[in-house]
Amino acid sequence: MDQILDRLRQIVGPQGYLSDPADVAPHLVEGRKLYQGKTALVLKPATTAEVAEIVRTCHEARLPIVPQGGNTGLVGGGVPGIGVPGVGMSGADGHNVVLATHRLNRIREIDAANFTMTVEAGCILATIQEKALEHDRLFPLSLGAQGSCQIGGNISTNAGGIQVLRYGNARELVLGLEVVLPDGQIWDGLRGLRKDNTGYDLKQLFIGAEGTLGIVTAAKLKLFPAPHDSATAFVGLADPEAAMALFTRARGATGDQLTAFELIPRIGIEMLVEHMGCVDPLGEPHPFYALIELSSSHEQAGLGAVMESLLERALEDGLIQDGTIAASTAQARAFWHLREALPEMQAYEGGSIKHDVSVPVSSVAAFLKEAIAAVTERLPGIRPVPFGHAGDGNIHFNLTQPKGADKAAYLARWGEFNDIVHNIVARHGGSISAEHGIGLLKRDELTHYKSALELELMARIKRAVDPENLMNPGKVLVLD
Amino acid sequence: MDQILDRLRQIVGPQGYLSDPADVAPHLVEGRKLYQGKTALVLKPATTAEVAEIVRTCHEARLPIVPQGGNTGLVGGGVPGIGVPGVGMSGADGHNVVLATHRLNRIREIDAANFTMTVEAGCILATIQEKALEHDRLFPLSLGAQGSCQIGGNISTNAGGIQVLRYGNARELVLGLEVVLPDGQIWDGLRGLRKDNTGYDLKQLFIGAEGTLGIVTAAKLKLFPAPHDSATAFVGLADPEAAMALFTRARGATGDQLTAFELIPRIGIEMLVEHMGCVDPLGEPHPFYALIELSSSHEQAGLGAVMESLLERALEDGLIQDGTIAASTAQARAFWHLREALPEMQAYEGGSIKHDVSVPVSSVAAFLKEAIAAVTERLPGIRPVPFGHAGDGNIHFNLTQPKGADKAAYLARWGEFNDIVHNIVARHGGSISAEHGIGLLKRDELTHYKSALELELMARIKRAVDPENLMNPGKVLVLD
Repeated sequence: MDQILDRLRQIVGPQGYLSDPADVAPHLVEGRKLYQGKTALVLKPATTAEVAEIVRTCHEARLPIVPQGGNTGLVGGGVPGIGVPGVGMSGADGHNVVLATHRLNRIREIDAANFTMTVEAGCILATIQEKALEHDRLFPLSLGAQGSCQIGGNISTNAGGIQVLRYGNARELVLGLEVVLPDGQIWDGLRGLRKDNTGYDLKQLFIGAEGTLGIVTAAKLKLFPAPHDSATAFVGLADPEAAMALFTRARGATGDQLTAFELIPRIGIEMLVEHMGCVDPLGEPHPFYALIELSSSHEQAGLGAVMESLLERALEDGLIQDGTIAASTAQARAFWHLREALPEMQAYEGGSIKHDVSVPVSSVAAFLKEAIAAVTERLPGIRPVPFGHAGDGNIHFNLTQPKGADKAAYLARWGEFNDIVHNIVARHGGSISAEHGIGLLKRDELTHYKSALELELMARIKRAVDPENLMNPGKVLVLD
Repeated sequence: MDQILDRLRQIVGPQGYLSDPADVAPHLVEGRKLYQGKTALVLKPATTAEVAEIVRTCHEARLPIVPQGGNTGLVGGGVPGIGVPGVGMSGADGHNVVLATHRLNRIREIDAANFTMTVEAGCILATIQEKALEHDRLFPLSLGAQGSCQIGGNISTNAGGIQVLRYGNARELVLGLEVVLPDGQIWDGLRGLRKDNTGYDLKQLFIGAEGTLGIVTAAKLKLFPAPHDSATAFVGLADPEAAMALFTRARGATGDQLTAFELIPRIGIEMLVEHMGCVDPLGEPHPFYALIELSSSHEQAGLGAVMESLLERALEDGLIQDGTIAASTAQARAFWHLREALPEMQAYEGGSIKHDVSVPVSSVAAFLKEAIAAVTERLPGIRPVPFGHAGDGNIHFNLTQPKGADKAAYLARWGEFNDIVHNIVARHGGSISAEHGIGLLKRDELTHYKSALELELMARIKRAVDPENLMNPGKVLVLD
């Protein structure tokens, strides 16, 4: 084992691995601190060739590899040395290496005329967005962690975020990939084509596979014209039915230039006002709110007027109770701050049991009604804070503990509430992981919600591409 | 064998199979009449359960199945009993059954609020478009064969067409699938979710697999708001460089509401005027033309003014030589007729050697220059008619024979010209089959343009999902 680790250190050189336990520590945990991992070595290769050499060496030694990007995942997908069936995380058999992509951070090319950009896996999402804007282009993937998450991780988890309703998930934003396969071969699929029907679309395998089929080392991304006009509104609503009716109407009435449609419940605004001194943009309280954004690359798109007309009619028809359009970029930022600060807000009120679910857009209102009723029946005083990307049918259905309840005792009921909520989701044909993925957190639960046939197909793909089960073993699925 | 065929006839009943050779004949050929197939039986199941029972029976008997939709494919992907290595198409071992999806033609559901529609594989594309419009929704997939092609075939070939630059290929328009797997099990993946990160995205396997991994029996499709405003222009250009510069500018300047950007060469207009009595929309001849369409679901999007401003500036900047905006729907239709009649036009001028290629949008002009020079050098007098979806980098680079040349002798050089053109495509990182697929026609050629690694990965996927090689064997790829 020591020999192999020496060989791996040689491949990357002194800059390419971590030896100080303090440097290694952040690579053994994830954001929610649910897991404590263990690894023999954290490697930080700087080139695809180094990644390939590492993987080849590990393949020969049958040493598992756990790929990590910005390590901002929320389901334990990047935690090393844990969750491998039959292997204790601290046992000698639990050996693994972490392959962190930080140093694979070059922007290889930007082709503004092709509306594409070629980036390495370790590029920070926000850096990519900025680089695109310099060329009057938009890379639309946008999410809370964008200042630290890496595009390789975004692709490997098929990241979603706030602009999916217009531009799609990470999957739709990838035209080509470069991947190091489990045996160390490099697959160069970095094509920049809008149309290519030459056999199976292999890149789809690696997108959203959470590193279990290979290591994404670079990607050719799809860009769009940069926005030059936008309008942002904050509206008060009686209930989710009204919110979703407004959403449906908004798509047509704005020429499908709707970029975001986020739902926020009253309790969220109250928490923001109380704990962060935020200002409620509307005079009176409303049961629900929607944050709506339109954008266009056309400078004179007149989106302010389009938004005004949408809201006026919605007010006349009783679809909204009140609404305000941001008069400045600063005010638009303030509206967005309300939405973006919501996740951290919940920590002020004690334990929060989280769900990242989606249902068909047409079922969002019914789902919320049923789920709020069911959790309230189980635990009177529980405080649902359902918010998020309602325009994608994606609700972060988070449940804040009853006031004054014991936090630990409440959080111990995590699985119980997951069951309640996820069963309602399943009845609506929904997903128990809309955008966060499966990782370790939902791996076993997934077996209750996917058919045996679907799990078997997944296992067949895994075995076909990674027959030795060396790539992030124990994540997403368990092989027999 | 007779026993198995009897059993298959029993499954579908008297309405579910063809026995008259005249009825069978159209199922043995494809549009370009390049292949003559052979089959033991043409089955027309009416339900997914019947499909499953057929596939189960064939699986037990190790009898290959060739799925067919509208049979409008251009690469022989649906021709039965041919191209299977080691098996003569007329030999006893060449047995197979054709599974035609015509009777799987129900629209199961339309959910306007979710912007989705659930359709069976045999639904005609145009029927789906019309049904969507009845609900003020757009299903944007649009191509020449839409009056007879079926959505199952569109999905299995990842069909492209004219609106891809805005809405994507068939792949991007599918949210969920129902598939009968090679052993007859039904995989119900008919989800209607915008976000679902619960494991591998299995539907991607079957999209574009040309029936080699299973039979798509139904799909949940993505819809968009129906257009209520549009503008169509026909412009004259000096060369493809100008066309592509105009395209890049048009995306940004129209708020990305560009729905089509089609390139047409002068020779195409001349053929249309001569053989079909079409009217050239512009007074003077120009080396190239672009057909540009903008559309929006917003009634007052003012797209006429947006188009006018785009063309005015382009004229001022010398980017276009002339241009006209359709003053009526009839005139817009006439512009489109010029584009749509182009493929059949070539038959009037003798033999046409065809290429369905794509390159990065930024390489379209360079590709055309090089390819036109190369084929002209090889055969002076050859008449290139490059047209198509330039906005996707997808050119139908068709080569009409020199005037007065012998048609058969010219067409005998098909492979020679394919080599010239495809090598230039490859140098630009392009695709030798942008939207038509591989089928039989390009199967062997593909091995020259894909890496051995990529072909090996494809074979691994094929073996993992269809280990007995019963689904459309010999198409797309050959197993060892």
